[in-house]
Amino acid sequence: MTGEFERISLFTAPFEKGGGGVVAGPGDDCALTRPRPGWLLVSKVDELVEDVHFSAAFRPEEVGHKALAVALSDLAAAGATPRWFLVALGLPPGFPDRRLAGLAKGMSALASRTGAILVGGNLTRAGALSLTVTALGEAREGEALRRSGARPGYELLVSGSLGGAALGLRLLSKDGGSRRSWRRSWRRSAAVRSQLTPEPRVGLGTIAGRYAAAGIDLSDGLLQDLGHLCERSAVGAELYEENLPLSPEVKRLGAEGLELALGGGEDYELLFAVAPERVAPFVRAAKRRGESLTRIGRIVEGRGIRLLGKGGAPLPLPASAGWDHFR
Amino acid sequence: MTGEFERISLFTAPFEKGGGGVVAGPGDDCALTRPRPGWLLVSKVDELVEDVHFSAAFRPEEVGHKALAVALSDLAAAGATPRWFLVALGLPPGFPDRRLAGLAKGMSALASRTGAILVGGNLTRAGALSLTVTALGEAREGEALRRSGARPGYELLVSGSLGGAALGLRLLSKDGGSRRSWRRSWRRSAAVRSQLTPEPRVGLGTIAGRYAAAGIDLSDGLLQDLGHLCERSAVGAELYEENLPLSPEVKRLGAEGLELALGGGEDYELLFAVAPERVAPFVRAAKRRGESLTRIGRIVEGRGIRLLGKGGAPLPLPASAGWDHFR
Repeated sequence: MTGEFERISLFTAPFEKGGGGVVAGPGDDCALTRPRPGWLLVSKVDELVEDVHFSAAFRPEEVGHKALAVALSDLAAAGATPRWFLVALGLPPGFPDRRLAGLAKGMSALASRTGAILVGGNLTRAGALSLTVTALGEAREGEALRRSGARPGYELLVSGSLGGAALGLRLLSKDGGSRRSWRRSWRRSAAVRSQLTPEPRVGLGTIAGRYAAAGIDLSDGLLQDLGHLCERSAVGAELYEENLPLSPEVKRLGAEGLELALGGGEDYELLFAVAPERVAPFVRAAKRRGESLTRIGRIVEGRGIRLLGKGGAPLPLPASAGWDHFR
Repeated sequence: MTGEFERISLFTAPFEKGGGGVVAGPGDDCALTRPRPGWLLVSKVDELVEDVHFSAAFRPEEVGHKALAVALSDLAAAGATPRWFLVALGLPPGFPDRRLAGLAKGMSALASRTGAILVGGNLTRAGALSLTVTALGEAREGEALRRSGARPGYELLVSGSLGGAALGLRLLSKDGGSRRSWRRSWRRSAAVRSQLTPEPRVGLGTIAGRYAAAGIDLSDGLLQDLGHLCERSAVGAELYEENLPLSPEVKRLGAEGLELALGGGEDYELLFAVAPERVAPFVRAAKRRGESLTRIGRIVEGRGIRLLGKGGAPLPLPASAGWDHFR
């Protein structure tokens, strides 16, 4: 194990340097950046802690990827384009250089693909491995999305598919992550991959501000996160059960799959409330960027979330989804 | 102990809401801010961890104060005016609400005094109490300070006095922080207070960009931090021993006090390299703001730091200061 400055160099080595409005990056007391005119968005601080947010089943590259992905997903939900980010690492005593390099590799690959530039961070001793990321992004004035912009009559659109990350977590937990042969076969499952390395919807985020009225990313699960959005907007919502885009592995589970799609967290898909006349243009613009958007419901007056089956008959909400204060 | 959302409310309650260029604060996926034209400065991520960076001798209010102070000191060293900050809290299981409120009280008092606005954060479980702060500030274009701006012939100016925080740490460590009566008497010592609640030189930071060419804050100790500045600027430095502004308690310790002033960390004073013709105006402008600046040395060609006694005779650098790679 090397000294503190060597470890910082080891970590920062694979990240791209300079450009992107950075006047001075890591190494000074502060990073110096030049924002474009408009709004600056600062992601909430997202912290991943070993054994709380990820297990030994995760490879270091996957932990590094996920820590940044979660922060970029926050920016995307707000309609922001990522610019800069900071990362604070808490490393347990004796943490091997090889694993530190793995964290950096996974994180830098996602950073370079999404145009997010590392501008600073910190390295400290900790009881358990932890990664704390704060990301900064920009939006044109008036084009950033908040949770509070949903109005009755607006449609609910969700990106990608639902329930995969929760199923992946279940598959990983079953086997404890101790056997190498299992690890390899797990990774063939799309559900497991979406748990290990969720892909933040960065491209969708950069256009969402032009079409949507409110946005949130699905970290706690569709019902919980839709609940947050409704609460902030002082509205209710209806969900169309047969429209929910379950991933194929999740769909095969039947009722249990529906529970995962409604209550399972960590999909990091984006949920938007969109005025009816903007739905079609938004869906088309997303498609041009290779992103799918599915109409899964609508905003209504009042409070609470209702799940509707075929023909509009109300269905019971699964009790396990942990959102019963919204009923 | 209350639930997660209640604890977040409990923590954020004493902080000022809105204003200060904040379009949307905590509660959304992102904070939405409106930067002024110019440069945006992002402090390195500063993390305080219980038993690593602070002990049980600290009251919660003092921990909250110090976590923010350290980040604001980074901004001040870079010549930035604080605008916004984020805080990630890692709380051990069973952490009492009363202590959480104490952290918030100490931090919000400093925030409101310095104009820094809480715009987001995170709360997570952790093995030990930890506070991670990232602060954002602004400077006029071209007026931010970096470590790399020092040139031979520039004078070295330091704010306040040196060695107090290290002496305070020593006093606190002696008694382990277990006896309440001791705690009260400790707090009469200015050295102990500068360890517990260092005052970031925020006012000085807001004017420093007009006068200084390089800046750094003293977190690791004068010799180490001056070493960082010299390394970045590719220069050496001379320090005048008799000019070093030792705090009275530190001065009384003689040679040991000098060691604390040179090698002891956490003073969170600011060190600037200033072109000779700008020294007098800088000192006057600082004085008008109630801040003292002392000329303690100058930048020279070459590498390394030399300590000079009366008449310019070189003095040995104390071996305990942990910077001998600069000799």
